[in-house]
Amino acid sequence: MSKFKALPGFRDFYPDDFAVRAHIVGTWREVARRYGFQEYDGPPLEPLELYVEKSGPEIVQQLYNFTDKGGREVAMRPEMTPTLARMAGARAGGIPKPIKWFSVPQLFRYERQQRGRLREHFQLNLDILGEEGVAADAELLAAAVDMLRAFGLTAADFVARVSDRRLLRALLLHAGTPEDQLTLVYNIVDKLEREGRERLIARLTGEAGLTEEAAGAVVDIFRHRELDAVREAYGADPEVAAELARMAECFAMLEAMGLRDYVRFDLTIVRGLAYYTGIVFELFDTRGELRAICGGGRYDDLLKRVGGTDLPALGFGMGDVVLRELLADRGLLPETARRVDFYVIAVTEAERSAALSLVHGLRDAGHSVEYGFRVQGVGKQMKAASALGAARVAVLGADEVAAGVANVKTMETGEERRVPVEELLRP
Amino acid sequence: MSKFKALPGFRDFYPDDFAVRAHIVGTWREVARRYGFQEYDGPPLEPLELYVEKSGPEIVQQLYNFTDKGGREVAMRPEMTPTLARMAGARAGGIPKPIKWFSVPQLFRYERQQRGRLREHFQLNLDILGEEGVAADAELLAAAVDMLRAFGLTAADFVARVSDRRLLRALLLHAGTPEDQLTLVYNIVDKLEREGRERLIARLTGEAGLTEEAAGAVVDIFRHRELDAVREAYGADPEVAAELARMAECFAMLEAMGLRDYVRFDLTIVRGLAYYTGIVFELFDTRGELRAICGGGRYDDLLKRVGGTDLPALGFGMGDVVLRELLADRGLLPETARRVDFYVIAVTEAERSAALSLVHGLRDAGHSVEYGFRVQGVGKQMKAASALGAARVAVLGADEVAAGVANVKTMETGEERRVPVEELLRP
Repeated sequence: MSKFKALPGFRDFYPDDFAVRAHIVGTWREVARRYGFQEYDGPPLEPLELYVEKSGPEIVQQLYNFTDKGGREVAMRPEMTPTLARMAGARAGGIPKPIKWFSVPQLFRYERQQRGRLREHFQLNLDILGEEGVAADAELLAAAVDMLRAFGLTAADFVARVSDRRLLRALLLHAGTPEDQLTLVYNIVDKLEREGRERLIARLTGEAGLTEEAAGAVVDIFRHRELDAVREAYGADPEVAAELARMAECFAMLEAMGLRDYVRFDLTIVRGLAYYTGIVFELFDTRGELRAICGGGRYDDLLKRVGGTDLPALGFGMGDVVLRELLADRGLLPETARRVDFYVIAVTEAERSAALSLVHGLRDAGHSVEYGFRVQGVGKQMKAASALGAARVAVLGADEVAAGVANVKTMETGEERRVPVEELLRP
Repeated sequence: MSKFKALPGFRDFYPDDFAVRAHIVGTWREVARRYGFQEYDGPPLEPLELYVEKSGPEIVQQLYNFTDKGGREVAMRPEMTPTLARMAGARAGGIPKPIKWFSVPQLFRYERQQRGRLREHFQLNLDILGEEGVAADAELLAAAVDMLRAFGLTAADFVARVSDRRLLRALLLHAGTPEDQLTLVYNIVDKLEREGRERLIARLTGEAGLTEEAAGAVVDIFRHRELDAVREAYGADPEVAAELARMAECFAMLEAMGLRDYVRFDLTIVRGLAYYTGIVFELFDTRGELRAICGGGRYDDLLKRVGGTDLPALGFGMGDVVLRELLADRGLLPETARRVDFYVIAVTEAERSAALSLVHGLRDAGHSVEYGFRVQGVGKQMKAASALGAARVAVLGADEVAAGVANVKTMETGEERRVPVEELLRP
């Protein structure tokens, strides 16, 4: 045993685990491609200031940050959005809008370890820059939903809960929340599901200074679980009505795409992060057993602040850890058993050279091929072929080499056939 | 413009650059697959001690190392081999040999910046563990050569220069080098091509304390450019003869694979790293304009030291930076222009919903599809389709929607055809 171990919270990906990760990342890439998104990447190490600018100085305690040998304050990236803002800011002028980009960075956070929580994960980041219309929100939501559908998950397995910060704002103002208490109220109602009505009203009147009446009105907002119910209750307020119309349009577009079953209106989705400005959403497993699978929304002000370019923007992040748990729960992880197309056997040392020639020819034709590094009996080589999951075994004895053929056994059926080497090598 | 920039020596991968990186990494993966190698990965952050154990304390000045918030001394990985040794050491007992693994880590080195030298790069690492026979060396060399052939490079573009540390050792001993001066002599002859005969002899007699005669004999070794010439000159020494026979066997295997033109015997390939124990090689562009494209060899003692498991091992590293320069020089970089399979056009707002349905149906069938987020005239939408490199444009007007068809234009030929939507959606 080595005296060294991986750092706590960091994963080793042995081939079986890597195969699952490759399946997840590969599926994300495939769906992104269908949606016309282009992949980008940035450095895993960035100036510390980039993250402080976006999230405030409190973020530093969660970062892998240090002073590099050139005296620069740097941090391993805890999220991708600041890098995206920086990169888009540097070139946005020259790129046609909307910009549809995605990335699959590994992200790092120094969290106090609990419940096997990791300190790194891979996260799909998919963003649309330069489009303020609601069609972009529908596109983003559809992409998030299809990312999961592509793994074989259905509406029975997950749901996207969708709200809009502008709608929530209009409703809170309508209920009598003072404008300067909005942020505080967002933070309080974000915990809505975990706290009772009494406790919420106490916090709204206490911490946010709302009147008893306004606090009650705020809590009542969240009793409405359908868009129609909200319209019936508050639709007379023109600001609320305008926001409801936008949300309804988004849902109609998802309906047109055949995805309406996957999205549910839910005003309790606030998303703590201060920078969201419009439609926000989170994807959850329907059994409610796991943390959010995905979260995102519109953040129209961030690029100006961090990237120096004033572009509306929206996007989501989807990590590999919760998704993997969900796929495992539902029996949707891929087969990771080894397999190769061919195993080539030289019967004796004399056929060794011909065997190497066949091995290389098959590989050049695109097949995956294995063979034994040591001269062994045919039986032992056959065993090795089975262990490697070979689909076919090509045996070369003296007769076969003389005749320019190989004796090819299809392992699944046991069928054997003499095949001209020339035919085997045809691409 | 953003006030933030990437750190010096770190690259942003905008979509065009990312596409080239994806081409390089994708080609590596494809060749590794054909050779039956399995992909693995480890953490980009490891205990500092892991690298000190392998390379000595001098390595620290080149590392991105720091103390994490838990008081651990850590470093961003400067190379993959220690992680491989650690991971293999932890599980080697349970894995059938030979182990054929590869990885494509991003690696980090704090080097004083010069000539645009980068501080990060991606490096293919391909290793075989648990096989001491020369067939594994031939397999490794063949894989290195095929990694480049797969990009369209030929024997006119690159060559693998191959030596053997055991052969060199036997020759140096034969020439009269004292055993305890071997390491020093390796280091001196490693610079052979850059220094003249006089200077070399001066260093061999001065620094390594060789006699004039031995120093002359050492320098003479490197005048032999062919295996046969070395055999003729030194083959009477039984140790040299045994090493020559092994090398000849390796070359014969590469000949059988049809790759003999890509490898050249070259005793000047020493590879500075102290841990190589057998066949060593480097791949260079034939014009000699670039740094080495790839380097590797056999390191039979390292796993025991770092990984705690005594397995013979061999492997190579191939970075993305020099390779990319070579591909650019030879006009072998891939096309990175955008393209999508379909662009869907709604003639008016009334067809919007049908268009979204078609968009999603086509995506579900596996096509990449774009459309406009805003309602615009058909002409403008056609222009957008061209800009996105759409292969086909599907137009939906009122008539088409009523008839359940789309008017499909193939952009390359200009041909237009009314196609039932059902037919378009067939996978």
